[in-house]
Amino acid sequence: MTAHFVSAPHNSKPPDWAACARQELGDIEVTLGKVIGSSVPTIARINDHLLTSGGKRLRPALVTLAAKACRLPYDPDRVVNIAAATELLHMATLLHDDVIDRTDSRRGRVTANAFFGNKVTVLSGDYVLSRAFWLLAKDGDRDILRLIADLTIAMTESEALQVVISGDVKSWEEYYWRIIRDKTARFLDVCCRSGAIVAGGDEALQDAFSEYGLNLGIAFQITDDILDITGDPAKTGKPVGSDLRDGKFTLPVLLTLQNSTDEEGSALMKIARQKELSEKDVAALCEATVRCGGVEMAREAAAGYVDKANRSLEGCAPSPALDALYALAQSIITRMN
Amino acid sequence: MTAHFVSAPHNSKPPDWAACARQELGDIEVTLGKVIGSSVPTIARINDHLLTSGGKRLRPALVTLAAKACRLPYDPDRVVNIAAATELLHMATLLHDDVIDRTDSRRGRVTANAFFGNKVTVLSGDYVLSRAFWLLAKDGDRDILRLIADLTIAMTESEALQVVISGDVKSWEEYYWRIIRDKTARFLDVCCRSGAIVAGGDEALQDAFSEYGLNLGIAFQITDDILDITGDPAKTGKPVGSDLRDGKFTLPVLLTLQNSTDEEGSALMKIARQKELSEKDVAALCEATVRCGGVEMAREAAAGYVDKANRSLEGCAPSPALDALYALAQSIITRMN
Repeated sequence: MTAHFVSAPHNSKPPDWAACARQELGDIEVTLGKVIGSSVPTIARINDHLLTSGGKRLRPALVTLAAKACRLPYDPDRVVNIAAATELLHMATLLHDDVIDRTDSRRGRVTANAFFGNKVTVLSGDYVLSRAFWLLAKDGDRDILRLIADLTIAMTESEALQVVISGDVKSWEEYYWRIIRDKTARFLDVCCRSGAIVAGGDEALQDAFSEYGLNLGIAFQITDDILDITGDPAKTGKPVGSDLRDGKFTLPVLLTLQNSTDEEGSALMKIARQKELSEKDVAALCEATVRCGGVEMAREAAAGYVDKANRSLEGCAPSPALDALYALAQSIITRMN
Repeated sequence: MTAHFVSAPHNSKPPDWAACARQELGDIEVTLGKVIGSSVPTIARINDHLLTSGGKRLRPALVTLAAKACRLPYDPDRVVNIAAATELLHMATLLHDDVIDRTDSRRGRVTANAFFGNKVTVLSGDYVLSRAFWLLAKDGDRDILRLIADLTIAMTESEALQVVISGDVKSWEEYYWRIIRDKTARFLDVCCRSGAIVAGGDEALQDAFSEYGLNLGIAFQITDDILDITGDPAKTGKPVGSDLRDGKFTLPVLLTLQNSTDEEGSALMKIARQKELSEKDVAALCEATVRCGGVEMAREAAAGYVDKANRSLEGCAPSPALDALYALAQSIITRMN
């Protein structure tokens, strides 16, 4: 499953790092509500359903925080529009992911496709994606438009790659890093860079925020992969081992396969290489992943990326927005422990 | 079914109206081949399949012909890129249409979803749509970007509306014109206007070509709706009455329901209002539509729009491209008879 930042229910308290962008996040919500409406009632209902399904608006927050952390004068309306476009792109991928994965629930609420059928859900995803480009066209910044078009292409390719290599552990060893970079990390990278671009940050600033976003995204996806194995289903909203059941071999499992003793390693690899995993197989792989240290190693890897993310901000001048970006990175560590 | 301009097999001769844009259409094909490639083999195969499935590149031809008919100097590379973007948008809708309609074949070839599965086909559609916006972002013209984003939104809404009102003859009476305008006619309108914009045509010229495209598109869709009832399945690639079977009540049928005698009209309306149409019902409605003059009335309506399309070009200075636009409009009349 693609990482979704917050699995908490809709009415949960906003995280501390969001406080510094509270005003903008409110404005972004208003913009989302406006542009997501449709004269076709079913599309309007699907989109409204999506809009009220919660989520902490991580991507718009990153656009906003990166813009603020540049400490330069900028047009707040542009930040709001571009930030809203990133959330729309995220929503479009959720709608198409739900169709693709035949997911029945997300964040404890029924998904659009289960409720409205696949047909209109695919079209709603197209609608929301088009609205994202519509907002970007309205803004007119070619660099940001290109960044987001490139990103959408890479995300789509990595989602397709995931489907194509589903269940093939050897291919997951080969492509895991590419997939998490392209489906999750680059998105956060692009959000941060776009914020810096709108704020008129120079190339060094843009690169710094971009680097922060990329590493944050890698850490974030690894954490999501860990929580699929160690998380409380009541909190994550999905049963333990869902990724394995979906044919996805993520870092904690891959590290376990690579680092367990010869005998156990061969036994686990034999399980992993089967065409279909039974519930018993999934349970055995999850258990071994915790016991043999795969989870611990993945945690260390994620912590390393959080550290890398923070280090990339070292040259930035202090500001409340910068503190919020540090706090956001730190929240990943808290989340996975 | 959304109108696809040519139902002839892949290796058919290009239409005469295309001759004047032959060079550009060749360049557009090269661009399409380049940008549609993907490092993910399945996406590359789906896109290649789509690219080689034929189609007369009506939309890119309209961009090119409108640009040429302005008789002003312009950058040919920009025309090629924007024209290619319109074809990509069209391809994306075909991919998502195929998933949505569970279509098994198009232009006599197996569709991507039947061959590769729905999952990757939805993603390929997303990929191709993103590539369209990528090309437009590369070009950077904000007006064209907005036009195409608006168009994509309207197309998506009308496709969803089609799904929502499927099988409901009363709703089709209400929404038929909106649907064909938004799903087909506006696209041709936007292609023509974009061509005029790239060529630096003034507002009057842009409006003239836009008006031509809109009316051409309406005539084109009505013709497609007629051919669904009168066409040779070997040529159209679909059985007679497919629209009715898909729950779509198109102009020839609607005109028949409105204009037949009281007794026959009530009998037909009773059939049309059933929850599901049997094969016998479809055959009865098709037969009545031909016999009671619905097809003939729809033909007259289409001819009226072709006429309107031609009249909107009256103020344009003569040129081979203008002749090609007239010939293109005329080909609709030939096609439906």
